[in-house]
Amino acid sequence: MIKVGIIGASGYTGEELARILALHPGVELTVATSRQYAGKKLSDIFPNLRKIVDLTVEDVVIDELVKRADLFFTAVPHQTAMGLVPQLLEKGCKVVDLSADFRIHDAAVYEEWYQTHTAPEYLSQAVYGLPELHRELIKKSRLVANPGCYPTSIILATAPLLKGGLIDPATIIADSKSGASGAGRGAAVGTLFCEVAEGFKAYKVAEHRHTPEIEQEIGKLAGRPVVISFTPHLLPMARGILSTIYAKLLPGVDGPQVRAAYEEFYRHERFVRLCGAGEFPATQFVRGSNFCDLGWKLDPRTGRIVIVSAIDNLVKGAAGQAVQNMNLICGLPEEMGLATVPLFP
Amino acid sequence: MIKVGIIGASGYTGEELARILALHPGVELTVATSRQYAGKKLSDIFPNLRKIVDLTVEDVVIDELVKRADLFFTAVPHQTAMGLVPQLLEKGCKVVDLSADFRIHDAAVYEEWYQTHTAPEYLSQAVYGLPELHRELIKKSRLVANPGCYPTSIILATAPLLKGGLIDPATIIADSKSGASGAGRGAAVGTLFCEVAEGFKAYKVAEHRHTPEIEQEIGKLAGRPVVISFTPHLLPMARGILSTIYAKLLPGVDGPQVRAAYEEFYRHERFVRLCGAGEFPATQFVRGSNFCDLGWKLDPRTGRIVIVSAIDNLVKGAAGQAVQNMNLICGLPEEMGLATVPLFP
Amino acid sequence: MIKVGIIGASGYTGEELARILALHPGVELTVATSRQYAGKKLSDIFPNLRKIVDLTVEDVVIDELVKRADLFFTAVPHQTAMGLVPQLLEKGCKVVDLSADFRIHDAAVYEEWYQTHTAPEYLSQAVYGLPELHRELIKKSRLVANPGCYPTSIILATAPLLKGGLIDPATIIADSKSGASGAGRGAAVGTLFCEVAEGFKAYKVAEHRHTPEIEQEIGKLAGRPVVISFTPHLLPMARGILSTIYAKLLPGVDGPQVRAAYEEFYRHERFVRLCGAGEFPATQFVRGSNFCDLGWKLDPRTGRIVIVSAIDNLVKGAAGQAVQNMNLICGLPEEMGLATVPLFP
Amino acid sequence: MIKVGIIGASGYTGEELARILALHPGVELTVATSRQYAGKKLSDIFPNLRKIVDLTVEDVVIDELVKRADLFFTAVPHQTAMGLVPQLLEKGCKVVDLSADFRIHDAAVYEEWYQTHTAPEYLSQAVYGLPELHRELIKKSRLVANPGCYPTSIILATAPLLKGGLIDPATIIADSKSGASGAGRGAAVGTLFCEVAEGFKAYKVAEHRHTPEIEQEIGKLAGRPVVISFTPHLLPMARGILSTIYAKLLPGVDGPQVRAAYEEFYRHERFVRLCGAGEFPATQFVRGSNFCDLGWKLDPRTGRIVIVSAIDNLVKGAAGQAVQNMNLICGLPEEMGLATVPLFP
Repeated sequence: MIKVGIIGASGYTGEELARILALHPGVELTVATSRQYAGKKLSDIFPNLRKIVDLTVEDVVIDELVKRADLFFTAVPHQTAMGLVPQLLEKGCKVVDLSADFRIHDAAVYEEWYQTHTAPEYLSQAVYGLPELHRELIKKSRLVANPGCYPTSIILATAPLLKGGLIDPATIIADSKSGASGAGRGAAVGTLFCEVAEGFKAYKVAEHRHTPEIEQEIGKLAGRPVVISFTPHLLPMARGILSTIYAKLLPGVDGPQVRAAYEEFYRHERFVRLCGAGEFPATQFVRGSNFCDLGWKLDPRTGRIVIVSAIDNLVKGAAGQAVQNMNLICGLPEEMGLATVPLFP
Repeated sequence: MIKVGIIGASGYTGEELARILALHPGVELTVATSRQYAGKKLSDIFPNLRKIVDLTVEDVVIDELVKRADLFFTAVPHQTAMGLVPQLLEKGCKVVDLSADFRIHDAAVYEEWYQTHTAPEYLSQAVYGLPELHRELIKKSRLVANPGCYPTSIILATAPLLKGGLIDPATIIADSKSGASGAGRGAAVGTLFCEVAEGFKAYKVAEHRHTPEIEQEIGKLAGRPVVISFTPHLLPMARGILSTIYAKLLPGVDGPQVRAAYEEFYRHERFVRLCGAGEFPATQFVRGSNFCDLGWKLDPRTGRIVIVSAIDNLVKGAAGQAVQNMNLICGLPEEMGLATVPLFP
Repeated sequence: MIKVGIIGASGYTGEELARILALHPGVELTVATSRQYAGKKLSDIFPNLRKIVDLTVEDVVIDELVKRADLFFTAVPHQTAMGLVPQLLEKGCKVVDLSADFRIHDAAVYEEWYQTHTAPEYLSQAVYGLPELHRELIKKSRLVANPGCYPTSIILATAPLLKGGLIDPATIIADSKSGASGAGRGAAVGTLFCEVAEGFKAYKVAEHRHTPEIEQEIGKLAGRPVVISFTPHLLPMARGILSTIYAKLLPGVDGPQVRAAYEEFYRHERFVRLCGAGEFPATQFVRGSNFCDLGWKLDPRTGRIVIVSAIDNLVKGAAGQAVQNMNLICGLPEEMGLATVPLFP
Repeated sequence: MIKVGIIGASGYTGEELARILALHPGVELTVATSRQYAGKKLSDIFPNLRKIVDLTVEDVVIDELVKRADLFFTAVPHQTAMGLVPQLLEKGCKVVDLSADFRIHDAAVYEEWYQTHTAPEYLSQAVYGLPELHRELIKKSRLVANPGCYPTSIILATAPLLKGGLIDPATIIADSKSGASGAGRGAAVGTLFCEVAEGFKAYKVAEHRHTPEIEQEIGKLAGRPVVISFTPHLLPMARGILSTIYAKLLPGVDGPQVRAAYEEFYRHERFVRLCGAGEFPATQFVRGSNFCDLGWKLDPRTGRIVIVSAIDNLVKGAAGQAVQNMNLICGLPEEMGLATVPLFP
């Protein structure tokens, strides 16, 4: 039984990791930390875990923690992660980092969008943890940078088209909408029920920090630097991201070619589901699951393709994908612990 | 592998059965029926089941269906069930009936609240399927009347106090609130999003059909006929029932006695969770699970106890409890297929 | 034009006051304070007020404020109010206080449920501001204690029956459910969208501070001390309170008597609407309005009456009622500025 | 007092018209029709109107109705409207038609997206009722084609830029999101609470019928035919449309130019509010009002502008704009009856 720990267990992502790991047959959750809630039972913070997870949350004392687990999930804010991850690696632990700190290969790009990077020497050993793109590298790595929620939904949606050279990368516009759990569990006026319910807004228009991460991965697929328009929005619901993505089709590209590209690319993928012609995904049909559902339509009037992708931001967009990465690193079956059916309604 | 079928698979309860059974390691779902959707794939009706359940919904032809399954869940409206269930039993199948048709032992009481009963001769062989109360009878039965959602939440909340003679049964008032999935998937103005969202109301005040079912079971526990006040309400959410129940404590009853009664009664129950002193359940912490969470408070000012219970109406209030009953009937471990962690947020 | 000010304008109640006063033809809003947001435009805090309210929020400097308004609404927490209100009164201003500080006539009772009262000498001049009960007193007062939201919904629902001696006051149970705006706009984990949405819970069971206020007013109507059971719940919606109230009917009381009592009591009330037989109120039909809708049912099986009342907690439960009180104090038509149609859906 | 009638009063748009007209000081609502609900009181269908609107809904008998009102709002489905409107006009009534039947000037275009047009001879006298664009024509017309909800949000957002020649019309992509009230009040599985809540999806991708209407008006502003990408989505909320619109800026266009264009264009508009730099609209801040809030951002990385607009789909997107048009036709002050403050939260 592989022992694993969660650093930063009091946020929604930490809780979701605990929820998934509690039933995972190949690992044992032995550590959960939270500075703020140290000393409390995890099931007192999240009563859904009552009678299921019997762990007391503790403060972060790396030297102690590393004795009790082989792999750690770091579910802490960016900037905090870059302080913890090197220590864990140096003590011989494997790490799946859910922050942004090791996702951007180029420290200069990171620093342009975030702040100074204090552990740039670890960037080269970090693998961008999107298994559908980088499975073999992940298997061999000790540090996985778990992708952002928005990037997961956008990269998976466009990868087959970019890889196949079917769209013009310079024309990509990603209009994304996320449930409020993506904003985390910190007390803030902006995410109070009354501020979010029965309302909808855009935020960080043309300046969201997930942009460089998306561009990095899309650029690799396109074989050249790409700049995209990306607008995130806040949905009046808890879970789910839906991205609507627009791009110009290259001349002569038709529907069968597009379908073939998606089917070929995702033929063996357990967690990607393709909608039939004329069907589109909806977040309520992936809720609580690690699925990414994809649908698309070619529009002959405009020469554009519209692609729609849906994920649960806390699962395929965070904790589920992190467990998928853990499975790969640890040599477990990739879908172990993730074979749930989306909860609808 | 035990083969099972769902009659009435296109409603929320039918879908929830499919969701649970899809991952159940002891049974195989071989039949799903729906008159309305016959010929469609179940995963086209409920896209959350894509890539997971590969069944085509068919019309109800009992003679054919019985060859393909050993046990049937009948998730059809009352009055329809009483026509189907006898046929299934006569063909040698076991039945977990999710309608109200076999819950009331006394046909006269049934007919007072519903309509004429056309199969009263089967009432005596039906067992009221609340495992925490009637486990041994269920194990031996071939026809389980799966409890209503509201009754489950109210009977489990009061059973230890009634059994222990700690409250006056004549003073019981149950104020219950349910999510909209309890109203089913039929197209109706009253359950449109815009009618339900950002709103709250009572309905069927002092005349809801679950009343006689609650009174029957509470009466058994109290050892005498009981009449209660029961008011259901419609919550602006999909899943969950919370019942707030009031009763006068009998003279001299104190807090430790009450706690002892609950702990004793539910000591070995996998699906009942007791809150600590000063804690109360919330529906969001049982969502998607078969748990019933219970909390209570003695109020010395009024001499009353207030009990609060929370269940997921589609799971412990319907499909989950039905699978629990199936497990008991079929000799499988009672919790098989039901060991999920509630989905929060 | 009467000049009025809002002390505590950055909460939901303060904002609601501004919303109503902005269109009120008889008064001018000249002052809005908030320690936290001093210096910001009110319409930057609440962008719904853009182009409508052009006030800059300022810090609370009583000596300055009193020069600029004749009447103040104090929409601050209890304990804060008792420090401010005496100063305002002494400077000759009229006050509608939306806190709990002046609602309880008996300082000892107040201190039992809240904390020490530092201005008990003002209690005797405060009028409990429920116009349907105390209109004439309000007209003559300079300090109105605006009722709590729950109390408004419960007292209006039971007043005709208590006044008429139709129910046994000792048997009253009030099960109330409130939207999240009642919890205020302070940043807190418990009222985050993800904690409240798709969920429902009871809180402060048998210990909510609105209890003594309800009992005081119900006791006056009953002509003797009354103790009630009161349970508040948190609804996954922003606005609205629905109270379901149970009581034993006194022997011989019948339906026509009950209806006559309600119709007589509320015959001339502009803001109370009685449902027809078999109809019940819903919060979505009073949203944004100052109405209190009432429905009820006699249950011959139990000898109880079930009364259901619905209000918008921010309007009739707070700001709307405060403006109604202001109109009375200032000699304006009682419904001035309050003649809105509930917003549905 | 001008007498007005609503044909089709049982849908959300009809109800919203009644809500607004009930308080309108310049008109009297004398007629409300609904085939389905004929004989019922409007306030029984919509209990928010209790004690406010005292009209009985009647069947549509044009010859009778025209005697009782001078102007009619036709809030019926397209195709039904084209049968009724000519009759009303011929009897001398004025009409504000809320259907799509008279919005498209070119019958051939209409028939391509809808179905056969049976009254094309009336298209030339219909004015597209967007007052901010066509105020003078509206004033003189007898038949106003009230704009669609999505078109209102998109045309107002782009008009200043198109008029000013600041963007390339061929690059316009409109990603729009609407609350569920836009889908109407018909009983349908797809708009049940449980299907819509906690979920989000795109629909009618690249084929929504509002497309030609948007292109017609945008084309007029651009001075040449325009083809756009338009994707509507369904939000888990009742009211509100937010459109996020992308376009390439023409070479050399900068921020101050863009702001000047918006300020100039909307300087005298009562119902358009411009956000400050770095601010964006949200639907919750226009709820229940006739406002259209606009914000935008230039993105130097991509050379695109992102414009965000928010309206209440039932008010500025339907009934409010219809009343604005009625005011213009009838020579009343344009904002009469529409001076409400958005309801937040």
